[in-house]
Amino acid sequence: MQVIKCLAAVAWEPNKPLSIETVEVAPPKTHEVRVKIHSTGVCHTDLSTLSGINPDGPGNLFPTILGHEGAGVVESVGEGVTNVMPGDHVIPLWLPHCGTCHMCLSGKTNICEKAFATFLSGMLLDGTSRFTCNGKIIYHYVGTSTFSQYTVLPDISVVKVNPSARLDRVCLIGCGIPTGYGSVLNTAKVVEGSSVAVWGLGTIGLAAVMGARKAKAKRIIGIDINPEKFHIGKKFGCTEFVNPKDHGDRPIQEVLSEMTEGGLDYTFECIGNVQTMASPPRVALESLRKGWGVSTIVGVAQRGLEISFTPFELLVGRRWTGSLFGGLSDEFLLKARDTFVFLLIFQVVGQLS
Amino acid sequence: MQVIKCLAAVAWEPNKPLSIETVEVAPPKTHEVRVKIHSTGVCHTDLSTLSGINPDGPGNLFPTILGHEGAGVVESVGEGVTNVMPGDHVIPLWLPHCGTCHMCLSGKTNICEKAFATFLSGMLLDGTSRFTCNGKIIYHYVGTSTFSQYTVLPDISVVKVNPSARLDRVCLIGCGIPTGYGSVLNTAKVVEGSSVAVWGLGTIGLAAVMGARKAKAKRIIGIDINPEKFHIGKKFGCTEFVNPKDHGDRPIQEVLSEMTEGGLDYTFECIGNVQTMASPPRVALESLRKGWGVSTIVGVAQRGLEISFTPFELLVGRRWTGSLFGGLSDEFLLKARDTFVFLLIFQVVGQLS
Repeated sequence: MQVIKCLAAVAWEPNKPLSIETVEVAPPKTHEVRVKIHSTGVCHTDLSTLSGINPDGPGNLFPTILGHEGAGVVESVGEGVTNVMPGDHVIPLWLPHCGTCHMCLSGKTNICEKAFATFLSGMLLDGTSRFTCNGKIIYHYVGTSTFSQYTVLPDISVVKVNPSARLDRVCLIGCGIPTGYGSVLNTAKVVEGSSVAVWGLGTIGLAAVMGARKAKAKRIIGIDINPEKFHIGKKFGCTEFVNPKDHGDRPIQEVLSEMTEGGLDYTFECIGNVQTMASPPRVALESLRKGWGVSTIVGVAQRGLEISFTPFELLVGRRWTGSLFGGLSDEFLLKARDTFVFLLIFQVVGQLS
Repeated sequence: MQVIKCLAAVAWEPNKPLSIETVEVAPPKTHEVRVKIHSTGVCHTDLSTLSGINPDGPGNLFPTILGHEGAGVVESVGEGVTNVMPGDHVIPLWLPHCGTCHMCLSGKTNICEKAFATFLSGMLLDGTSRFTCNGKIIYHYVGTSTFSQYTVLPDISVVKVNPSARLDRVCLIGCGIPTGYGSVLNTAKVVEGSSVAVWGLGTIGLAAVMGARKAKAKRIIGIDINPEKFHIGKKFGCTEFVNPKDHGDRPIQEVLSEMTEGGLDYTFECIGNVQTMASPPRVALESLRKGWGVSTIVGVAQRGLEISFTPFELLVGRRWTGSLFGGLSDEFLLKARDTFVFLLIFQVVGQLS
């Protein structure tokens, strides 16, 4: 196997535009796969990562090739790879399930220690990179780096999909769709008949709405400052809408409390904006009904920014949580490796068509 | 029934010392009970309330008679009272279960709407006060006002206890003990074999430790800057201790992560101090293991103060919650009305002897 020269969008340093460069992509090593990327989404997290410095999380390493919501075709595989072969259509998984670390073995979380190690190192599992550009080593990003015509991933980080599925659609299954959908069904565990509000009707928010409909929530309130989103929100399952701009200075938690006679059973923050005093994560918490309301943070905020709130909001029995990749469990991922979740794909592709 | 004149500690205004005054306590009206207070604890929440102004919660109303962790003897009852009679030993309940409001009927929370209405109004359920002092109306405090030799409460707000129980001990059952104990068993639902850390080894923290032992937690780490608490902490069930003062500038979340190889399954903040950069509620969140750790806020912070944190702490699958009165459910309270939880009393009284 040869080094492949191809184009990639390289992030040389934080807060600077990406630069299209010719990069060299080394062949896959043992238990690695080289994939020709056909399509990639631009997730807001790519932008957040580019925006600055995060001492704890991924993305502190430049130069890097961002992108983690892609779909493509296996070009070649390294030794020991058995789950895919050249020609297979695959989706890269930025949060794989290694099945052997303490976290994967717990059966209680989808946070894989091996995956986190690659987040922090910006390297593949053996601690090295497959990317160079003009002789410089380029870091991988969350093990996927889909803003490149070719990328190399661990074999645990690819899932085979039906070749009849459109790659420019199913790439959204690489991040946005499971993140929103799973946060409702796996993380918050919305129950039938409940009231739900979703902040931000982008891919993640619409997928959360779809999850809430699947869970048979009675009321699904979509919240966005762009009323053009309401038409598609309705297709995905919203029963009502709130545009904060329609309410002047009135706090949205007050509007929602009135609409729901005391607050919502579940709220989902799918924006990641913590920069304003009335930051959506805080408002989403305060919009919950006392006693049992659950708020789930799904959007990833710009690095280093903090949310503040008064602890009394939690003392009255509310719960605040969050998840990555919708908290999707190993069962889902293991199943996904072979059969994938066709129903979900068809549902999404149907809505988008 | 006559008006009773007695002594009470009146809080005339925020941030001023309490003043011992002669007050008039009116007879109980329908479904009310007048109680001669024998003993009362001083809960930190009384001090927090006294300290300032809270636009949302209880305690914004002065002059008032604070105190909510008492025990006493029923002096007289109003019409329609059937659960207690004069001479009965009782504990006032600041968070009663009316059994008829939307929240009580949900079966999902111990936050009673009627109780909250009295918190906010500073009055009894009919919207009036039974206290006057030199002709001035004095507000009730969370429906209990135990810093008075006599107080009047709704009948739903008293629970009968065995007359052989020492009133100067069981008064702690009025707040601190169930708050800590219940937060572990009802709110966080600690499971067998898990690791637990408790910030603050006062009444609430020690009760949380007792709850963790009851739940068969494997490791119970007590955290306090006063090492004199460690002796009693051990009696209640702590297996280890951390004194933040022993670790200089090293963040305690780092110390705990090392001790537990990645963080704790459950943490409990039983202090209510949010004033420092390394505020215990935030540190308690950050000390959790990624993926499934649950942090419970139990301590009540000074009014108006906020906590800040980076949302990434929740995105990695942690959960943050809180409860009032240990989230104790209506079942507990209904059972408590008649039989009380003798086991719990004896356990506590045994530890304190």
